[in-house]
Amino acid sequence: MACELCDQVGGALLWRDELCRVVQVNEPAYPGFCRVIWQAHSKEMGDLSSAQRQHLMRVVFAVEQALSKLMRPDKINLASLGNLTPHVHWHIIPRFHDDAHFPQAIWSAPLRVNTPPPAPSLNDLRITLDELLQTPYD
Amino acid sequence: MACELCDQVGGALLWRDELCRVVQVNEPAYPGFCRVIWQAHSKEMGDLSSAQRQHLMRVVFAVEQALSKLMRPDKINLASLGNLTPHVHWHIIPRFHDDAHFPQAIWSAPLRVNTPPPAPSLNDLRITLDELLQTPYD
Repeated sequence: MACELCDQVGGALLWRDELCRVVQVNEPAYPGFCRVIWQAHSKEMGDLSSAQRQHLMRVVFAVEQALSKLMRPDKINLASLGNLTPHVHWHIIPRFHDDAHFPQAIWSAPLRVNTPPPAPSLNDLRITLDELLQTPYD
Repeated sequence: MACELCDQVGGALLWRDELCRVVQVNEPAYPGFCRVIWQAHSKEMGDLSSAQRQHLMRVVFAVEQALSKLMRPDKINLASLGNLTPHVHWHIIPRFHDDAHFPQAIWSAPLRVNTPPPAPSLNDLRITLDELLQTPYD
């Protein structure tokens, strides 16, 4: 079976190691929307080892922290759904009080039309993520 | 400011320690839907320490594993949104191909009416979670 996340990078590549990659996705209503994608084709977090899950979540939380620092959103949403693409990946979505769906989930019907804030530059995201992920595990 | 997750347990209590609790929520369309709620009023995962995040995610993944074992869903969805209730909590949602929203997120418009499978008993959930969380960190 073809898998979109096996076949394609899935966005602008920000960071990667052997186990996972971070991409910024092209969602004009949600600047800064990033995904962390497990490199191997696994379906559920429960299919990974405890150490693998911990590694992946460390990257997810580093992306949360980077977006928080660079965009100062009102909230950050994290989700691993994968109903359409059952290959482990996480959505990290900066949310603003005036965004198209706030306070609902971005998968609900839009509530308004707004002008989103500018996205952080790929370069700033890369530098910030590199810094956060260079620190050793604590 | 009043906070629903500070003031109420938030569902049928399945497991708790000093840092977090697991509840089964009453969502008739989604039997087995559980939440893991951080006991303290923190807004973002990034507000917790690395050790606290690791502890919380260990519980989230134990709930995922328990629901997977007891219900054999087609997919499990995990999400931490908190736009309406900015107090750290995780949704763990067993999904089935014929559920009301599949393959969309449960926050989207329903696609069909279905008869959900029976929920696991609170007792089975409690026993399974206890077993999973008794094993030492690996």
